[in-house]
Amino acid sequence: MTNRVVIVGSVAKDSIETPFGRVANTVGGSCVYSSIAASFFAPAAVIGVVGEDFPKAFLKKMSARGIDVKGIKIAEGKTFFWRGKYSSDLNTAETLETQLNVFGNFSPEIPAEYLPEKYLFLANIDPELQIKVLEKMKTSGKCRFAAGDTMNFWIGGKKKKLEKLFSHLEALLINEAEIRQFTGEHNIIKAVKRILALGVKVVVVKKGEYGAACFMKNRMFFLPAYPLRNAVDPTGAGDSFAGAFMGFLAGNGETNWDNIKKAAVYGAVVSSFTVSGFGVSRLMTLTKKELAKRYADFVNLIRI
Amino acid sequence: MTNRVVIVGSVAKDSIETPFGRVANTVGGSCVYSSIAASFFAPAAVIGVVGEDFPKAFLKKMSARGIDVKGIKIAEGKTFFWRGKYSSDLNTAETLETQLNVFGNFSPEIPAEYLPEKYLFLANIDPELQIKVLEKMKTSGKCRFAAGDTMNFWIGGKKKKLEKLFSHLEALLINEAEIRQFTGEHNIIKAVKRILALGVKVVVVKKGEYGAACFMKNRMFFLPAYPLRNAVDPTGAGDSFAGAFMGFLAGNGETNWDNIKKAAVYGAVVSSFTVSGFGVSRLMTLTKKELAKRYADFVNLIRI
Repeated sequence: MTNRVVIVGSVAKDSIETPFGRVANTVGGSCVYSSIAASFFAPAAVIGVVGEDFPKAFLKKMSARGIDVKGIKIAEGKTFFWRGKYSSDLNTAETLETQLNVFGNFSPEIPAEYLPEKYLFLANIDPELQIKVLEKMKTSGKCRFAAGDTMNFWIGGKKKKLEKLFSHLEALLINEAEIRQFTGEHNIIKAVKRILALGVKVVVVKKGEYGAACFMKNRMFFLPAYPLRNAVDPTGAGDSFAGAFMGFLAGNGETNWDNIKKAAVYGAVVSSFTVSGFGVSRLMTLTKKELAKRYADFVNLIRI
Repeated sequence: MTNRVVIVGSVAKDSIETPFGRVANTVGGSCVYSSIAASFFAPAAVIGVVGEDFPKAFLKKMSARGIDVKGIKIAEGKTFFWRGKYSSDLNTAETLETQLNVFGNFSPEIPAEYLPEKYLFLANIDPELQIKVLEKMKTSGKCRFAAGDTMNFWIGGKKKKLEKLFSHLEALLINEAEIRQFTGEHNIIKAVKRILALGVKVVVVKKGEYGAACFMKNRMFFLPAYPLRNAVDPTGAGDSFAGAFMGFLAGNGETNWDNIKKAAVYGAVVSSFTVSGFGVSRLMTLTKKELAKRYADFVNLIRI
């Protein structure tokens, strides 16, 4: 039986402006990017909430990719909305508007059919909700590999909750600025050591255009971002990385160090496609053949 | 017969302050860092100028490492002096004082014994002097692999001269901010393409703590910096990278793509030692055994 990846996170409508163009009210959110990215490797099963304005046709497209959308609740009101603008080097996003809408009262409900799944990705949401889902999936369910993400907002406001969460995660995916913020340690090796000491088995530090690094106790793997000449919109890059990472592990079924490294390379490969289109547009046209070709190119890029 | 690397560049006295300590009037300069780094792989032969205050004992130490110091002129006056301070993340240096001293009238003279050498590294000096040395080494001599470095100051003031220089170089080593400044192109792939169009065969883009990338036409290799927990002083990191890069190529004798990639890894490895001590201190105690061990660790760090 094929493992599925259970994913909880945001489902959103985004209005994005970058130096290369703009798009309004496009489908986004961490749950969307990560589940589509995962779907190239394994079926996904998602948990989230949308408003009545969310395009039903998009949920059908997700289903057609093997994503179980039973866990997406359609609530009265409007979908979570984010509007932002990127700097000329695409490295930083300025949030111009956030409307929580139905996401403001989000309380994840896990469909019973999801409980037997072994792989769980807790995308960036309130750590209290992440802990709630994790506990249910681990105690009532059969989860054995849970990964999580977070953001500066929660590190600032709910650090104790995050410490608790991390102590129960198998893997943490976190960006470079955030791990520095969380640990108060500029040096990445020292920062990662502190996170590992909390109980996480695998730490993946995401560095945007500079790639990523994977760590386990006494093990390190550094990888670049795939170099692109046509990056246009970084929205969802980190979520795509995480989704492909988890999808590969679930599809493969073994979470040893060699697979962690390959999963990270697939994460970099899939996110390189994400950023070469606005919103999820490029992800939605990506083929397995293109993905395999770029994986081979990537391996060549780092081989000596 | 073993190839030597001829190196022209600055010989200096540096006073350095970083968050991890300070050192005053220590020996430095691009010619010093790069020739010591090269000496682990091949003999070096240096061209530079020092004042009467420069410690003769240090020149003897260089000689003892197989560095031919015949080309170091001892001029009346004081040695080039630089005083600088690094930011808390070690990423940027603020120059507090520069005294050109004897370096202000530096006109490189190439000892006749250097002319038969095939490998030349033009460290960062006035591009007009770089061109002068390059022409002599290529027309009167037997140079067949010349590499160069530069800095923002010359890109701002002598861009045309640099274009001429680059058109005659086999390899350019340049940092990320500088290649963006030179080409006016933020995207590194596009920026490199413009440099390759000038005639350079190999471009190495140095990205500090984020590593480096090597390019030839239709070829790319990305490598991280070796992750350290004890970086204390980045002075000379780029020069050490370049010196080890050139030393490895000269020592090996073949400049094919596989060797370019290995040379870059040795560059990253040697510079990782440089930054873990103040000035040249760690480079001077580095052993070939330590170097071989870290090369193996580095290969493991990027292997999937």
